[in-house]
Amino acid sequence: VTPAQDPDGNGEALAILTGGLFADRHAKTAHGVIRYAARRVVAVVDATHAGRTAEQVVPFCVRPVPIVATVAEAADLGARSLLVGVAPTGGQLDAGFRATLLEAVEAGLDVEAGLHTLLSNDPELRAAAERRGVRLRDLRVSPPDLDVPRGEPRPPGLRIVHSVGSDCVVGKKVATLELDRAARERGLRSVYVPTGQTGIAIAGWGIAVDHVIADYVAGAADRLVREGAERGDLLFVEGQGALFHPAYSGVTLGLLHGSLSDVLVLAHKAGLETVQGREDIPLLPLPELVMAYEEACRPLKPARVAAIALNTSALDEQAARDAIAGTQDECGLTTDDVARFGADRILDAVFAALNV
Amino acid sequence: VTPAQDPDGNGEALAILTGGLFADRHAKTAHGVIRYAARRVVAVVDATHAGRTAEQVVPFCVRPVPIVATVAEAADLGARSLLVGVAPTGGQLDAGFRATLLEAVEAGLDVEAGLHTLLSNDPELRAAAERRGVRLRDLRVSPPDLDVPRGEPRPPGLRIVHSVGSDCVVGKKVATLELDRAARERGLRSVYVPTGQTGIAIAGWGIAVDHVIADYVAGAADRLVREGAERGDLLFVEGQGALFHPAYSGVTLGLLHGSLSDVLVLAHKAGLETVQGREDIPLLPLPELVMAYEEACRPLKPARVAAIALNTSALDEQAARDAIAGTQDECGLTTDDVARFGADRILDAVFAALNV
Repeated sequence: VTPAQDPDGNGEALAILTGGLFADRHAKTAHGVIRYAARRVVAVVDATHAGRTAEQVVPFCVRPVPIVATVAEAADLGARSLLVGVAPTGGQLDAGFRATLLEAVEAGLDVEAGLHTLLSNDPELRAAAERRGVRLRDLRVSPPDLDVPRGEPRPPGLRIVHSVGSDCVVGKKVATLELDRAARERGLRSVYVPTGQTGIAIAGWGIAVDHVIADYVAGAADRLVREGAERGDLLFVEGQGALFHPAYSGVTLGLLHGSLSDVLVLAHKAGLETVQGREDIPLLPLPELVMAYEEACRPLKPARVAAIALNTSALDEQAARDAIAGTQDECGLTTDDVARFGADRILDAVFAALNV
Repeated sequence: VTPAQDPDGNGEALAILTGGLFADRHAKTAHGVIRYAARRVVAVVDATHAGRTAEQVVPFCVRPVPIVATVAEAADLGARSLLVGVAPTGGQLDAGFRATLLEAVEAGLDVEAGLHTLLSNDPELRAAAERRGVRLRDLRVSPPDLDVPRGEPRPPGLRIVHSVGSDCVVGKKVATLELDRAARERGLRSVYVPTGQTGIAIAGWGIAVDHVIADYVAGAADRLVREGAERGDLLFVEGQGALFHPAYSGVTLGLLHGSLSDVLVLAHKAGLETVQGREDIPLLPLPELVMAYEEACRPLKPARVAAIALNTSALDEQAARDAIAGTQDECGLTTDDVARFGADRILDAVFAALNV
């Protein structure tokens, strides 16, 4: 992996705190950063799994990052920053984590987190950080000068691909990251544009668009595109929510209209028929959903759905291949599981739609 | 007008501060409150127009509220609260207004405002309010305990009508207020549900959904519907933005999906063909926009557009009647200008769509 996603370019050694939850799905920030970030991850801090390596516990992580029991051991391995790698329900900072973060600050490490509880609002943490001269970084804090989009022209030659979804947690972020990686492996000046806290932890920049003032979602997306354009000329913009999600559709549409993409990739989880957690709400059939996303774009800037990124993680390999073929037939669009079989077929379909 | 929109029921006497701008469009909060609020407005504080009455300066206001030069005169007329009645560009509190607000606090008046600059964040204002025992009320502050909608059943028998628009500033709020008023005049337990700061100033409750954290727009709308249901059984929910507005569409869709209305009324300004302020973006033809709103609702809860509320304020009476007839033919939907010709025809169409 090239360091295109380490914009600071300092390669600062990072430790990730998961506090006993490394094997849990709530540690998805840790897993995502280990698998995808160009940042140098030197340790996971998790007493429960200490002594093993990340990919031994969670194969998705791929990389053999050592798991240690304490912040002191992580510092011995060279860590200069500590990232909170779990997203607990409600986003609160619990007492055990807080004590460990204080320990990290006292040991001279920067601390970063994407919690709702802001580190910088904690008087004790803030005083300790000032005394030790280390930084507290809240990934979810939005820039103070956000605004609405002003309709200024985009840089010439910029291409924007946006990953949308049939629901939350269906694989939009993984599709975005894998497409960006495949494009960079082809030598293109491709950029992953992060729109949520895990993406920010992975890429080291971005805005959590679901946490800005509602009036500024499209403005934040527009700003992310302009910042991405300073990093490359092919942008893969991570989607959020879903166009018909009962809670998050507003963020989805604001992001769609603010990013004004050229091409969409629709992420879906094979077999999913209702909104997860809201089994009373059926999902639209995929071909209808493809049309709905294209219709949502059309009045502001037409964008075709170029391909379907199908998440087959719950299926065995033969069932996965069958599901992919079935969706491809149903929608008449290139379909693949980018995490399982690679992103190249979908990337080809994206390039065809972009006329690149 | 019945006091159904004065939920506190205290009829507290209100003065409205416009500081020389009463005749200006930026004083729309003052104009809306005077025309529509059930609150007892005893004075406008505006030295430029002092000595006249509100409807003499701005006919839209209808009511002969005296305009006085100073807060002291307003207090002599019985005012117990002072509302900032202008929405300056940027929403900042300027020095002149701030001095007048301090004077009001010292005179023992509560102060309320819908500015971005929060009154309660101003140390001097806050200290003075505490000393004098008066309240500072920031209309745009959202409740601290907002959340996503949980899909809990709505009260039985509740009917929800939502005013959507082809653009911002086309008459959604006026349509909502006039429909609610007409329904109450027919003896129904109707409620205007305010979703922005002017609406909150008018009705004395509500949430400015454009200023909540983006993830909570639908949750805020759902909460407003539940609060409205405690006040009546026929709700007219004010819309915000427009489904294809380049900046505000996310708020529009979140509000649509959070309110889960039974029937929509589409507000449009006669002759408008592009987004105001963005003449590079054509509006959809109205029949297509009607379909787009209905399609946006369908997967979560189908809702028909029952009528078009056409704002003909820029036309003379004959041109207005022609425009109404033309739109009615084009869309096949009852069309009228509620501010000019009354809300009864549209209300009949709404009731027909509700099967009431």
